Amino acid sequence: MKLKAAAEIGISAVHVKLPRTATENEVMHRVMEVNEDSKIHGLIVQLPLDSVHTINTERIINSVAPEKDVDGLTSINAGKLARGDLGDCFIPCTPNGCMELIKQTGETNTSRFRSGFCHCNSLFVHFSLYSDVTISRSCVPKPIECLAKEVGLFSDEVELYGRTKAKVQLKTIDRLQAQPDGKYVVVTGITPTPLGEGKSTTTVGLVQALGAHLKLNAFACVRQPSQGPTFGIKGGAAGGGYSQVIPMEEFNLHLTGDIHAITAANNLVAAAIDARMFHEATQSDKALFNRLVPLTEGQRKFSPVQISRLEKLGIKKTDPSMLTEEEITRFVRLDIDPESITWQRVLDTNDRFLRKITIGQSPTEKGFTRTAQFDITVASEIMAVLALTTSLADMKERLAKMVVATSRSGQPVTTEDLGVCGALTVLMRDAIKPNLMQTLEGNPVFVHAGPFANIAHGNSSILADKIALKLVGPQGFVVTEAGFGADIGMEKFFNIKCRNSGLKPHVVVLVATVRALKMHGGGPTVTAGTPLAKEYIEENLVLLEAGCSNMRKQVENAQLFGVPVVVAVNAFKTDTKAELDLICKLAKEAGAFDAVHCSHWADGGAGAADLARAVQKAADLPNSFKFLYDVELPIVDKIRIIAQKIYGADDIELLPEAQHKVELYSKQGFASLPICMAKTHLSLSHDAEKKGVPTGFVLPIRDIRASVGAGFLYPLVGTMPTIPGLPTRPCFYDIDLDTESGEVHGLF
Amino acid sequence: MKLKAAAEIGISAVHVKLPRTATENEVMHRVMEVNEDSKIHGLIVQLPLDSVHTINTERIINSVAPEKDVDGLTSINAGKLARGDLGDCFIPCTPNGCMELIKQTGETNTSRFRSGFCHCNSLFVHFSLYSDVTISRSCVPKPIECLAKEVGLFSDEVELYGRTKAKVQLKTIDRLQAQPDGKYVVVTGITPTPLGEGKSTTTVGLVQALGAHLKLNAFACVRQPSQGPTFGIKGGAAGGGYSQVIPMEEFNLHLTGDIHAITAANNLVAAAIDARMFHEATQSDKALFNRLVPLTEGQRKFSPVQISRLEKLGIKKTDPSMLTEEEITRFVRLDIDPESITWQRVLDTNDRFLRKITIGQSPTEKGFTRTAQFDITVASEIMAVLALTTSLADMKERLAKMVVATSRSGQPVTTEDLGVCGALTVLMRDAIKPNLMQTLEGNPVFVHAGPFANIAHGNSSILADKIALKLVGPQGFVVTEAGFGADIGMEKFFNIKCRNSGLKPHVVVLVATVRALKMHGGGPTVTAGTPLAKEYIEENLVLLEAGCSNMRKQVENAQLFGVPVVVAVNAFKTDTKAELDLICKLAKEAGAFDAVHCSHWADGGAGAADLARAVQKAADLPNSFKFLYDVELPIVDKIRIIAQKIYGADDIELLPEAQHKVELYSKQGFASLPICMAKTHLSLSHDAEKKGVPTGFVLPIRDIRASVGAGFLYPLVGTMPTIPGLPTRPCFYDIDLDTESGEVHGLF
Repeated sequence: MKLKAAAEIGISAVHVKLPRTATENEVMHRVMEVNEDSKIHGLIVQLPLDSVHTINTERIINSVAPEKDVDGLTSINAGKLARGDLGDCFIPCTPNGCMELIKQTGETNTSRFRSGFCHCNSLFVHFSLYSDVTISRSCVPKPIECLAKEVGLFSDEVELYGRTKAKVQLKTIDRLQAQPDGKYVVVTGITPTPLGEGKSTTTVGLVQALGAHLKLNAFACVRQPSQGPTFGIKGGAAGGGYSQVIPMEEFNLHLTGDIHAITAANNLVAAAIDARMFHEATQSDKALFNRLVPLTEGQRKFSPVQISRLEKLGIKKTDPSMLTEEEITRFVRLDIDPESITWQRVLDTNDRFLRKITIGQSPTEKGFTRTAQFDITVASEIMAVLALTTSLADMKERLAKMVVATSRSGQPVTTEDLGVCGALTVLMRDAIKPNLMQTLEGNPVFVHAGPFANIAHGNSSILADKIALKLVGPQGFVVTEAGFGADIGMEKFFNIKCRNSGLKPHVVVLVATVRALKMHGGGPTVTAGTPLAKEYIEENLVLLEAGCSNMRKQVENAQLFGVPVVVAVNAFKTDTKAELDLICKLAKEAGAFDAVHCSHWADGGAGAADLARAVQKAADLPNSFKFLYDVELPIVDKIRIIAQKIYGADDIELLPEAQHKVELYSKQGFASLPICMAKTHLSLSHDAEKKGVPTGFVLPIRDIRASVGAGFLYPLVGTMPTIPGLPTRPCFYDIDLDTESGEVHGLF
Repeated sequence: MKLKAAAEIGISAVHVKLPRTATENEVMHRVMEVNEDSKIHGLIVQLPLDSVHTINTERIINSVAPEKDVDGLTSINAGKLARGDLGDCFIPCTPNGCMELIKQTGETNTSRFRSGFCHCNSLFVHFSLYSDVTISRSCVPKPIECLAKEVGLFSDEVELYGRTKAKVQLKTIDRLQAQPDGKYVVVTGITPTPLGEGKSTTTVGLVQALGAHLKLNAFACVRQPSQGPTFGIKGGAAGGGYSQVIPMEEFNLHLTGDIHAITAANNLVAAAIDARMFHEATQSDKALFNRLVPLTEGQRKFSPVQISRLEKLGIKKTDPSMLTEEEITRFVRLDIDPESITWQRVLDTNDRFLRKITIGQSPTEKGFTRTAQFDITVASEIMAVLALTTSLADMKERLAKMVVATSRSGQPVTTEDLGVCGALTVLMRDAIKPNLMQTLEGNPVFVHAGPFANIAHGNSSILADKIALKLVGPQGFVVTEAGFGADIGMEKFFNIKCRNSGLKPHVVVLVATVRALKMHGGGPTVTAGTPLAKEYIEENLVLLEAGCSNMRKQVENAQLFGVPVVVAVNAFKTDTKAELDLICKLAKEAGAFDAVHCSHWADGGAGAADLARAVQKAADLPNSFKFLYDVELPIVDKIRIIAQKIYGADDIELLPEAQHKVELYSKQGFASLPICMAKTHLSLSHDAEKKGVPTGFVLPIRDIRASVGAGFLYPLVGTMPTIPGLPTRPCFYDIDLDTESGEVHGLF
């Protein structure tokens, strides 16, 4: 069956699965059949693990016709075969060797992919329109432990999660300490339409090109998508067409449970806050103390987290019996001001009815009700912590200093005060390990962390980037993606992520599309779910040229950080050559080091080969990376610098609540945190309707919040929806599972 | 380090971890050292996978002193070594051979464990009081793929999740179809105190005894615990002392994400319900239709799930343009009666403030607010479906027919009507595979599903039991646990779980404790978190004898189903021999086939050897298993039979709401579902205060709900709290992670 299916969709490599009962001759016979089938360009022999003692494996391997031979197999002899749990396939034990799918030959035009360390899956590209999930399935993924070996990971650094996903342990960084980092590339974009302009697809396509065409070590680092949109309206985020992370259903659903762990951790904090307020409101100091520090075998003892709180309160005692009445009161009462609570509950579901709720209405809560809300899980500060942390110890510290509210006396209340920080670290101990997957062409991908791009910084994890930079080596490339347009995702990548990691980026890839630029030039509104106006599907150089102002501004924004820019023009099939050429011309005039057409969606890595070459050249340019502002500047100055230099605002205006927070956070000692602007991504300004390059506006700052654990302040420009809703007909209408084949339908 | 630590806590087996750079001679030298260390009773040689070509493995294996030799290693030769990713250890490829820890010898008293197919971890038992987590860590778990091989699973039937957990694919059942099932044992208990009487511990201890002492193939099947209590007051549920599932932190936290998948699936349904009501309330029929069946490339098409709904409505059309106005209205309007919604949102967190909430208060929801609630995730119907399903196709059907509300015209509204059922199946496609772990002594354990024991049936999954029964073979034993006391968990096990699975149980193990029986005899109230009264720590045969009435009644309850009963007296260190003997005497008088003392908490499997022998004998008795009632009886009669025969009630009383539901469900065609009583587990009656054997009471039925997908009706006896709260000092105060060693502290 697999054989037929694969041949039908033009896939060159075929697995010959054999019944567990197959005799040696039956195996031989099957191989002979495949040898004579001209539709099949190669095969991989798979034998049940249990049969390796009863079958002469060499005889079978040697029976494969040379032109069908699976690369790497003939070079080994049965004695050297590893018989691990690698999907029962044969694995050559040569240092970097691995099972590999045979390459397409003859009439089809896919060249032979090979990179420094990464054997790529073969890929048969053609222009019929398969859905992303069909394409994703059309390519048989390498067993993930093969990929892990290819990228130089040791087996005891890898934890398998099924056959196509693995977690990589952090000790890898220590082992490779001495090894110089590779080149660091960030993919960003112009101000997008609501449909998105293909940053993820470009990230994957670029890595496929670097690895398969330039034969360089290349690693993609992308965000884990929220499950909410997957079932809502937007769909998945594995990239698209022939530039995807596979299997896309594994990528889009659950992955290895990191987001679920965050939901559990975040909501434990939320439950602890309300429960603590309830118990403080219903008990005397003495009763609280006796419960918080219970008698066990006749004596009371503080737990370590309680000692930490005492130290914070300036109480240098470790014997509970020595506390004075007044010290007991200060110790047991967090005295949270309900109005000041900034910690929200989260779900990874598009549930608009949880945007504003009243909790505590059951009689058991004795009337202690309050207004609260749910956010989408990726908006949790814990997700931002996961993305910005640099080690397990660092994560533990960050999780302990997260501020959830302010006491009535104006003191910040942390998860440590609640005694819950240790449990948070325990809940997050697996989530901190980056997840290894692969591209459609078999390149390595780290999928790790996916912080909300508006109220958080919208970049994948520092730890994944660091491990990848070590693994690829000095000549290799790590391509990471920053959410939204360059004014948001890239600015936060530089000023927040790089400031935390100490890593220096070599190249900015700015993704531009004809569609988005025409919109900036004055084209009709673009809305998800409704067909595009004709301006977008017919050539229109006037609209396009006008709209390129937005690209020019975003190129300038990148240059403010002293990093060379390559513009990637992500071509759609309705774009004309004249349109694509115009963009490239104007991009170079705007100061881009280079600008090239890309067709990786339709062509896979081959479609991004020119981009890869341009990026490689740009990476060798002298690089004067610098931050946009000094964190020691006053909060207001930092906000103004971003507003004026990046957004082009005349000035900023602090509304009273924001003004109050500036004073509060300065008093609480959080003034020197970097700034994470929460602004619409659909305009350089705060008004999503203003396209192109808005000017002459004052940026209103409604409020400012602090993510002290993650390490940034986030000014709210306008109101930010923090949990999406479901449309009348959500994606899930088309999503189903074939219970026979186990295949997932309808994901995109 | 590991060496020292292990020796200190008296563990016999030692891993000799070698630096990746170790030369052959350095390895030899290290082995010699260990040979001469009398504290060490055995070792396992581990070499980096990458070194196998540079080191003469046979020379090293042969250098291990015979008395230190790791069982199974000498019998193999390097040529036959499998070099998979098994923690870099050597695995003999003999059919059932596997890496095994060396046995304790000399002064310590642990005998040599071996079972038909399962090599057991050695275990050094002593009476100093280590915490459960310390004991759990003290025994090095076998690589889970070794255990999988031992129990006869093929490598392509196993999906690894790290090194100590694996998912087992359902195709295993088909492969073993012809194989006769093993013996099926259910562990239940007398009416417990709030502290629990040790059913899980007994389940694990019994399997350790059957496997290690009686040398029988034995498999434990237990529930996955909710994470809520783990951080609340109750703690974990991996068993305890020297009868545990290890690693207990993996068991108690996340596991492989099954409960998280249920949270995601359950809440997608909840979001779909409110979003659908919102869209129906704000759009015309035409607008709804145009959105539900959108124009794509000029034409409208129904998705398969919409066709199903049309069929349900009796509309035999597949062309959207052919629907009449009236048909369109019926198709697009689910017309849910908000008052009738029985589907709640869930979280796996003890968050009491979500017991009753008001949702939809954000302006974006235009005033469509309503009262709702969150339950703990394990109370979700989807968890009950997971536990009761018998195949992937069956799960898909059950998930599609779950009823979430009633329409204003009285029709049941299902997840299929919402179009979300396919997405649910996709979200649950991995959760349906049972999770393989191991006991402290290395026996196999399936951890799968953990439905709430009051509003659901409180038993682990049918699929895990079925696979285990095939794997152990006709002479082997599968021990599964039923939640709460025999009046609840066991009754539901027989009448609901066995009715669904068609499996016939051979033995009931009824766990009794001196503590609980004294309580039933009139002892002081037992409360979690407060010290026990002296009646419970001093001998008191009068209280005890009086309390044994409860045990007698529960023994009789088991016999109503025609299955032999063995009473396991779970001994605590304060119990006296006279007390334990009295219970055994009275148990046999009550009709138990046998009654024995157990000390598996302190002694591991050795402490349950007598119990194992009694169970083995009982399993060979003639067995006349029968259900308590015929599902075709009227709803009220089924409830009355359970109330009178199991609880000892005089009669039942249906309150108006319950009366109404009886009529509704009969009209809707759900009358022939079995009954899942939602009653307190702290008394045979509906009043938790009534201990012993209450008589002369009428059982009030407040309301009745339907879990149509899971396949039962659940009458509510009194009010059931469906989400616990956090105490003033939750467990999480003591939970922490050592970021150096990665060890978890404070779990219990």
